[in-house]
Amino acid sequence: MDTFFHAASVAVIGVSPRPQNLGRRIVMNLQRQNYNGVIYAVGPRGGTFLGHYIYKSVEEIERPVELAVILTPAPTVPETVRSCGRAGIKRIVIESGGFAELGPEGDALTRALDDAAREFGIRFVGPNGIGTFNVANGLCVGFPIFPLSRFGGTSIVTQSGGVGLTYLVEFESESVGVSKFTSVGNKLNIDEVDLLEYLRDDPATERMVFYLESFSRAREFCRLAATSDKPIIVHKSNTSALSQSIAASHTTAMLSDDRVADAALRQAGVIRTATIRGALDAAKICSLPPMKGPRMGIVSRSGGHAVIATDTCAARGFPLPEFDPRVLELAQRHVRAGVIKLQNPLDLGDLFEIDTYKEILADILSQPQIDGVVFLLVYHSLESEGRVESLIDHVDGIVKKHRKPIALVLQSWPEEVVRMKKYSHFPIFATAEEAVEALYVSRKRYRGLQRRTESIPKIRVNRKETAAILTQGAGKPHLGRAAFDVLERYGIPVVETRFAQTATEAAAHAKEIGFPVVLKTESPQAVHKTDVDGVALGLTRAADVKQAFADLKDGLARHVRRGAFEGAIVQPMAPRGLELFVGGTRDRDFGPVIVLGWGGTVAEALGPPIIRLAPISKKEALRMIDELPARRLLDGIRKYPAMDLSAIADLIVRASLLIAEQGALAEMDLNPVRLYAKGKGALVLDARMIVRS
Amino acid sequence: MDTFFHAASVAVIGVSPRPQNLGRRIVMNLQRQNYNGVIYAVGPRGGTFLGHYIYKSVEEIERPVELAVILTPAPTVPETVRSCGRAGIKRIVIESGGFAELGPEGDALTRALDDAAREFGIRFVGPNGIGTFNVANGLCVGFPIFPLSRFGGTSIVTQSGGVGLTYLVEFESESVGVSKFTSVGNKLNIDEVDLLEYLRDDPATERMVFYLESFSRAREFCRLAATSDKPIIVHKSNTSALSQSIAASHTTAMLSDDRVADAALRQAGVIRTATIRGALDAAKICSLPPMKGPRMGIVSRSGGHAVIATDTCAARGFPLPEFDPRVLELAQRHVRAGVIKLQNPLDLGDLFEIDTYKEILADILSQPQIDGVVFLLVYHSLESEGRVESLIDHVDGIVKKHRKPIALVLQSWPEEVVRMKKYSHFPIFATAEEAVEALYVSRKRYRGLQRRTESIPKIRVNRKETAAILTQGAGKPHLGRAAFDVLERYGIPVVETRFAQTATEAAAHAKEIGFPVVLKTESPQAVHKTDVDGVALGLTRAADVKQAFADLKDGLARHVRRGAFEGAIVQPMAPRGLELFVGGTRDRDFGPVIVLGWGGTVAEALGPPIIRLAPISKKEALRMIDELPARRLLDGIRKYPAMDLSAIADLIVRASLLIAEQGALAEMDLNPVRLYAKGKGALVLDARMIVRS
Repeated sequence: MDTFFHAASVAVIGVSPRPQNLGRRIVMNLQRQNYNGVIYAVGPRGGTFLGHYIYKSVEEIERPVELAVILTPAPTVPETVRSCGRAGIKRIVIESGGFAELGPEGDALTRALDDAAREFGIRFVGPNGIGTFNVANGLCVGFPIFPLSRFGGTSIVTQSGGVGLTYLVEFESESVGVSKFTSVGNKLNIDEVDLLEYLRDDPATERMVFYLESFSRAREFCRLAATSDKPIIVHKSNTSALSQSIAASHTTAMLSDDRVADAALRQAGVIRTATIRGALDAAKICSLPPMKGPRMGIVSRSGGHAVIATDTCAARGFPLPEFDPRVLELAQRHVRAGVIKLQNPLDLGDLFEIDTYKEILADILSQPQIDGVVFLLVYHSLESEGRVESLIDHVDGIVKKHRKPIALVLQSWPEEVVRMKKYSHFPIFATAEEAVEALYVSRKRYRGLQRRTESIPKIRVNRKETAAILTQGAGKPHLGRAAFDVLERYGIPVVETRFAQTATEAAAHAKEIGFPVVLKTESPQAVHKTDVDGVALGLTRAADVKQAFADLKDGLARHVRRGAFEGAIVQPMAPRGLELFVGGTRDRDFGPVIVLGWGGTVAEALGPPIIRLAPISKKEALRMIDELPARRLLDGIRKYPAMDLSAIADLIVRASLLIAEQGALAEMDLNPVRLYAKGKGALVLDARMIVRS
Repeated sequence: MDTFFHAASVAVIGVSPRPQNLGRRIVMNLQRQNYNGVIYAVGPRGGTFLGHYIYKSVEEIERPVELAVILTPAPTVPETVRSCGRAGIKRIVIESGGFAELGPEGDALTRALDDAAREFGIRFVGPNGIGTFNVANGLCVGFPIFPLSRFGGTSIVTQSGGVGLTYLVEFESESVGVSKFTSVGNKLNIDEVDLLEYLRDDPATERMVFYLESFSRAREFCRLAATSDKPIIVHKSNTSALSQSIAASHTTAMLSDDRVADAALRQAGVIRTATIRGALDAAKICSLPPMKGPRMGIVSRSGGHAVIATDTCAARGFPLPEFDPRVLELAQRHVRAGVIKLQNPLDLGDLFEIDTYKEILADILSQPQIDGVVFLLVYHSLESEGRVESLIDHVDGIVKKHRKPIALVLQSWPEEVVRMKKYSHFPIFATAEEAVEALYVSRKRYRGLQRRTESIPKIRVNRKETAAILTQGAGKPHLGRAAFDVLERYGIPVVETRFAQTATEAAAHAKEIGFPVVLKTESPQAVHKTDVDGVALGLTRAADVKQAFADLKDGLARHVRRGAFEGAIVQPMAPRGLELFVGGTRDRDFGPVIVLGWGGTVAEALGPPIIRLAPISKKEALRMIDELPARRLLDGIRKYPAMDLSAIADLIVRASLLIAEQGALAEMDLNPVRLYAKGKGALVLDARMIVRS
């Protein structure tokens, strides 16, 4: 990967004498960004450009070339790649469009390109991107005009050239320094995982921003991200079916379930944002020390802005502890007419001395009950003469000293804000609400990092027998009663379950179990038992059991044309409790997933279920429970007792292990899982499993 | 009110020779903004300033003065107001701080100020604001430096000077023209309702932005807002208990229930925003024709930005209909390499001609299946030479012609964006997501306007008897069984309810009603019956009824020391159904309110209830139902039937009339209200009412 950002020589293929030629722009960018290596221009028509001889072929170049850039019509690209291969070039940036993003007609070309690269062991970025850029050495091989970016620690990977440029421009105007930029385009060869791996270990990169419309290797991305101590910000778009058609046409992005992506990124400690502005603010706040606790201090030159900041603090669960009286005395000493109230949030009112601000901020940040500060520097009539600059430098200094963040909001005349952003290396936020939101992101990331250290428990389960049961289920519509056997092998508590092939046998089971009992149809066709009238509840006598057995058989025959009625399972009526469902599935991109929701027939009306990549720790399972809508039901409300959270968390952990370890299991649905009061456990009443075909 | 914005002469009181004196700044602002009236400076020390003689008292001025501005220490203000009164001045802007916002010590001063103004029939803005400003004539009496704003149709009313200035500055840099600015401060005399009334009829004002931390006359504000055809944007902060302390200290804002405010503003057709940026974008979109339908067209110079716009469209329920093939042919003709896909969203890809853009946009906007367009004009390498300017003018023209909005997003180099904003009178948005959000605001407002025309149904109810029953309940802890009588007078269906003073009487009632029955304690102390073990369900025999009667009596005695057990009400067991609760209350600021939520004991876990100002129309009641969490339960899900929405809506309407009309009723709680399948109605099973003391 390093060659893409540190090549000592570049061949730009696709340069022509035509003025609108885009290849020329690449050469111009390299010169404009002061690239300190050797540039070779290549184009079939030859000629010269900007002092460079234009080679007719890359193979004509007399010296070895480390990196090639191709911007020629798509049909010519595979052969051009071969030509590079023959010239000994192993790294290429391909910017030409017209491949898989255009549908079937581009697919053949894509395969040809792939073959050509394989033949010579070439790795390439693209096609259909706008290039790569290393701000440190000016190696900028893009065809649009790139900004002269400030060098810094933020690296950018983008699946859309247009959005990538927006990021570069915005970072420049926000004075966020950039290290490396990569427009990955169709990600045919090098993808975001390669870049994550490289940038994670790149000493010049301190944090990363990814704009993605699809994941190439989603699970791997999350696995790697979880090993990075550098902040990773992912702006993932293309979250709706509506968006997919356009995304697929401009890159080759495919839609995956966005809720799975959301959960997986969170689990990996990644900061996910939904907007460009959110990603910018996240990158800015990540250049400061993290917000380690929730306790906020607010200092403001305007009472109204302090109110807005406080609203956002309240919404985000940031308490505002009282300041040490010392700082209030400090402020009191300098107040003019005495018309402000001294508290947190501190409205500076008619306190105008910059030096007093410095003292107050330093004092507040040093207080142990404060984890972070929002400083709202609003001035429209304050003459500055370098005083605001010195204040910003001071803020920078105390943040470094106390290792706590200050989110600085600067509001003034537009020209003044621009001037200060140009001056400052310290991040500046536009509004009070955005500053608090940024600190919320900082806090979430810090907590996410703590969370990553939790380990998946080592639980004794019977993997071998489970695998054997699943193998037997292959090819069947569903696993039937064997699903209960699988659960037992993983130590998941299930209701006592017996199988009866005849009505008499069912009645005998019922007597042994004790009335009342439940009967459920057992049949390969009865995937959803309620759909075939396959459940009989509350049977209190042997005669009722026999009648119910016959009814179940009739029911199946009524609903399924050639229903193979195998018999019925007999279970005791479980005591009442709250009903949940626990599910497991495999996401196309992210792999095994565990799901939790309210159970019963009306569950889905209560909102989307809670999702995690499997397996998970017990703490994570408890967090899933915390995210349930109407979660308070579990704490004991009115006459309901508090529920056995430990038991359900343990059950979720085991189910997550099951779906993660048993690759043959395509899908499982434990529904309902009945949950009882603290100490009384949880019980799976019904289960449905489907084995991979 | 007009004098505040059109006075031909102003006396600035509080001008002194000291350089830091704030009164001087007011005179400077008036000159800088080219105020075309006469300025008189007034200050006890006399002297001259900026060519003006400084009068020692306003009473010394030789000619009549229309408006005075006071910026003197708070203790001197009441006397200064009297002095103005003696000089015949009837309108004053008071900017001095140090009144009620500082707590009890300021209260006496506040009363003195109020008295002084009353004595002379003076109306004033403030105290504790930063002044007023009419951009049209330069009448700017603020003490901070005000921007030289562009004149236009947006008027601003702000409760915080700092936030108000931020609005002025942001509007200026976004090229949103401003008409009138008022910093209302403590709103002691003139408040936001006065200004709303004035600005609603002010020919120069086309839309209004209010920044409020509290409402002075909340219900009146909403009533007036509902009569305005001009867009009203309210940025209401101070929504949390945390914020209240700071808000109260910098103005005199008091916290009201934010959910009530939210519902009330929505009902009045007001656009409520939570952020400064939201208010700016709302003001911008409101300068365009409204989005009358949901069907969006997206045209973009960058595929990535189109994906982001599409995500937001999906989230906001905007469908993207197919474009007429005509426009795709138009685009096809101009595409260079043919590497874009022609669809909605339309990615312009390598289509670079501005004239083609114009044709495409005009064509799309004219298509009947399109209600609005997002145009993402992203350019970083396009040389412009006035071409972008002509494109913006063209967009302006076709928007006016077709009376549909185009949200224009312009992303380029920062200097270029600033240049275009300076040039353009047409609103420019920063990002795709903000543009779509703005159109969503436009759409919501348009729908809100339609909604305002719905009338409250004329329902025959027995107002007189109801009032009489309520009068009898005054002074009691609650109304007891008479609550059912009240509901019947308003035509609200209640379960059959009989009262028994003895066990024998209860058993007799039960027999007549038919078993099973329910018994409930009747007692002034049994406000919440379940708290005193006051409910016995499912009684199937006379003996059980008698026993239950005794148990209820014991239960009350157990829980309440001197419980006056009056007897029990007997009701039939109502058939099963879904349970809702309908409540009525009086908000301190907004008056009568109607509330809807899920009923039963676990209801509160399902999230906050749905709120409206009472009374409401039946359509509005149906909208409340639509906002219930897990609303789908009502449509029939799995084995549940679809519910009788018309019956519950009718019940809500009647309950809303009851709380709105019967001023004696402080609070009511119909819980549970049992709802049945379509055509089967709804039934109040229990009710609690509290009469005002």
